[in-house]
Amino acid sequence: MNAFITNAWYAAAESAALASQPLRCTLLAQPLVLWRTAAGQAAALLDRCPHRLAPLSMGEICDDAIACPYHGLRFDATGRCVLAPGQPLVPERARAQAFPVIERYGLVFVWMGDASLADPGAMVDLPAWGEPGWQLTRGRTLFRAAWTLIADNLIDPFHTSFVHRRTLGNASGETVPVQARELPDGTIECGRWVENAPPVPIMQRLAGLRGAVDRWQIYRFWPPGASWVDFGAIPAGSARTPEALAGAPYRVVSCAFLSPQDATSTHYFALQMRNFALGDAAVSAELDAQYEATFEEDRLLLEAIERELERDPHAAEALLASDAGVARLRRRLSAAQTADD
Amino acid sequence: MNAFITNAWYAAAESAALASQPLRCTLLAQPLVLWRTAAGQAAALLDRCPHRLAPLSMGEICDDAIACPYHGLRFDATGRCVLAPGQPLVPERARAQAFPVIERYGLVFVWMGDASLADPGAMVDLPAWGEPGWQLTRGRTLFRAAWTLIADNLIDPFHTSFVHRRTLGNASGETVPVQARELPDGTIECGRWVENAPPVPIMQRLAGLRGAVDRWQIYRFWPPGASWVDFGAIPAGSARTPEALAGAPYRVVSCAFLSPQDATSTHYFALQMRNFALGDAAVSAELDAQYEATFEEDRLLLEAIERELERDPHAAEALLASDAGVARLRRRLSAAQTADD
Amino acid sequence: MNAFITNAWYAAAESAALASQPLRCTLLAQPLVLWRTAAGQAAALLDRCPHRLAPLSMGEICDDAIACPYHGLRFDATGRCVLAPGQPLVPERARAQAFPVIERYGLVFVWMGDASLADPGAMVDLPAWGEPGWQLTRGRTLFRAAWTLIADNLIDPFHTSFVHRRTLGNASGETVPVQARELPDGTIECGRWVENAPPVPIMQRLAGLRGAVDRWQIYRFWPPGASWVDFGAIPAGSARTPEALAGAPYRVVSCAFLSPQDATSTHYFALQMRNFALGDAAVSAELDAQYEATFEEDRLLLEAIERELERDPHAAEALLASDAGVARLRRRLSAAQTADD
Repeated sequence: MNAFITNAWYAAAESAALASQPLRCTLLAQPLVLWRTAAGQAAALLDRCPHRLAPLSMGEICDDAIACPYHGLRFDATGRCVLAPGQPLVPERARAQAFPVIERYGLVFVWMGDASLADPGAMVDLPAWGEPGWQLTRGRTLFRAAWTLIADNLIDPFHTSFVHRRTLGNASGETVPVQARELPDGTIECGRWVENAPPVPIMQRLAGLRGAVDRWQIYRFWPPGASWVDFGAIPAGSARTPEALAGAPYRVVSCAFLSPQDATSTHYFALQMRNFALGDAAVSAELDAQYEATFEEDRLLLEAIERELERDPHAAEALLASDAGVARLRRRLSAAQTADD
Repeated sequence: MNAFITNAWYAAAESAALASQPLRCTLLAQPLVLWRTAAGQAAALLDRCPHRLAPLSMGEICDDAIACPYHGLRFDATGRCVLAPGQPLVPERARAQAFPVIERYGLVFVWMGDASLADPGAMVDLPAWGEPGWQLTRGRTLFRAAWTLIADNLIDPFHTSFVHRRTLGNASGETVPVQARELPDGTIECGRWVENAPPVPIMQRLAGLRGAVDRWQIYRFWPPGASWVDFGAIPAGSARTPEALAGAPYRVVSCAFLSPQDATSTHYFALQMRNFALGDAAVSAELDAQYEATFEEDRLLLEAIERELERDPHAAEALLASDAGVARLRRRLSAAQTADD
Repeated sequence: MNAFITNAWYAAAESAALASQPLRCTLLAQPLVLWRTAAGQAAALLDRCPHRLAPLSMGEICDDAIACPYHGLRFDATGRCVLAPGQPLVPERARAQAFPVIERYGLVFVWMGDASLADPGAMVDLPAWGEPGWQLTRGRTLFRAAWTLIADNLIDPFHTSFVHRRTLGNASGETVPVQARELPDGTIECGRWVENAPPVPIMQRLAGLRGAVDRWQIYRFWPPGASWVDFGAIPAGSARTPEALAGAPYRVVSCAFLSPQDATSTHYFALQMRNFALGDAAVSAELDAQYEATFEEDRLLLEAIERELERDPHAAEALLASDAGVARLRRRLSAAQTADD
């Protein structure tokens, strides 16, 4: 169930972190070295010299090429060996494996599968990205759990009423059912409205909400690893027009890009777009802190489930009505895994 | 040789530690969650929600049921799901695995095998337990060694002369042979008298013994995990009547309940009954300290043997006359393992 | 490729470290206990009592024999049980496994294979050892890498220009080719001269060299684990007579004995003989520090390669001209591994 889907774009680093120094990152159990050329192009090679297997990331960038720390061989962004000290002719097999790279959303994405299938069009289009009226913040963490457990969590609005009672949820949502559907483009969506209920802690803390609200949670997931959550509240009983939602006193679209580090750990690149307190650094800092707290709430739980699955890989589950999104997403992932083979 | 015997009662916790908070404990490589109901009944479930596999022990006890931290499902002491938030009908398969529990000797015991075979009559009856004239103290530790190595140790009076020279033994016992037998109820016993010898350090320290004594070590073991050691001294040459032993200036009956945590680590629940200095808290504290020291002496050795067995699982032994108890116990355990399959 | 060659002498300890206390050392994944008898003879047994498998190294030496900490059995340097407390007759099978031992170069060597094949004549003869005019220093470290990766490194003068730029190398050697050959006795040799070049950092720091030099690196390796490196410099353009080399302003013969601790870690016993500043303790201390720095430079790299090989045991290499010594050594080791089976 947690086999990797290789033919996809995976976030490897924040664009701002990529410079003329080598950066090591492990994705899908493969070590990569990333760097940025003088012209600004991001490069990604397997972090292993084809000569005697030293990690290239321990070397230096020289003239846009990366130099192996062991014997000084240099490789350009395509993996071609452009210098082999003391070697008149460089053998063709001394080639480092290169990976296609694109940048978007302020992140560096790497195509981990068949390079000939790499397709910039396969990159997800996040709704609302780049539109005016949003303030962006970012976060990053690592879960010691299989990516599939994080994916389950990110198509499951129901769990917030229990796991995130101190942040994103409260008791008013405990029995409110969810609806799931598959959009025409294959996106899985699962959401609900919790009506005439007290605002959850994060809304009170960040936007000062006090009276009864109608709040929505719309979760979308694009296999294999992009998540988009639209979360907001309007005064209870308000009309639910697009304009009303756009002008809601609290609305956060939080996105996550999941990149398996290996079979049992997962990089989590997060970005949050909020529609309030634009440009307010104190609110940005508090939003960061609140989202880190929710990651921690999920982490404790998901890492415990991971350990139980490692103990007993054949543990059976009993899915319920609240798993409508989970069930649909798993079917999609299973099909994608089969297609990827 | 260290396969688990599942159909037996295993100590999981001290009764005093069990309250209305969930307590996690791993026995026989299975995680359990324990709690106590308002009526005082101990409960034990597999620590895994049947819905999406979260550890129940991370949840809360509500109305005598345990609530899953992930989606709020509640399970009573029998494992039945008594609440599934937002779910009109709870499917029968959403049942948590329950384990039979009884309490005795101030400990909570769990039956880890076939629940239909759970038999309170299979609980060991410790001689002298509950009789007047004894002062009780308790201890608990964990050995990073297979339970079978601890069992070997607990039917082996001979090792005390070497391993415990600073506590329970001294050189006078180094060549004194042991006798072993199987009692009619299947208990293994191995013991000896060391005669006309200086008292061992613990007797000097706790009871001030100085002159020559005859001291006895009677070790009993009830498969798979209950140990009882009668250890005392009378003036050298005294008659060995039950009355003389009862009135000995030093006598400690130390019991241990072994519960495999997994294949290579073992919970050790200890209790000591002494016949001297009743009610003296300073002596109780010193006795605790001395027994902790003996556990540590055994731990260093047994954990080193464990590591050697992990390195070379086929290492051959050469049993000697002093292993009379060990040899008998292993035959019994082997038969019990076969019967348990 | 990294299978052990068992029929060989392996350094286990420094002779100076061996006294009448037991010393534990793991070689070729086998735990050994070493000690020295009153007559000065080094002894080596498998560190496991044949009775109940306790590590003998946790016991004491009594009358030149080692006493098991568990039940007091004693074994002499041949592995024979000379005392079994309380046991009238010691069974023949209660014998500890003994290993042949010899001492040379201030080190204790153990023959790890078939004892009947142990041959003092198979010990390497280090050139220059014992001759006048040299000052000896020693070092010891552990690499968390397979012994074969260290062996590769020790027949590879080329890497010093890149890995050891702060100590043993500099850019002047980056493109200077190496020559390799097999000597009549089966020794692999790989070396080169770097001509008319600035002295490397260690020569500047320890011997104050400043002007252009011709420097040599002659690496020899005796399978399976002895390394000898002759490294020095003479004024650029000097005649290269043996006398000139003997009188060089800087010359260090550094030797290493590799002993696999297990498949993925390797003991490294080093000794350096220098021809300058004889008897100067400050220079000895600085030489130690510089060699420890070079071990650390190699360690970071070789341990990273080890981790990559553990991740992908089938990673392919592309050997180059600079690997002339590596290629010859691997062929020899491969033949020795086959012969050892």
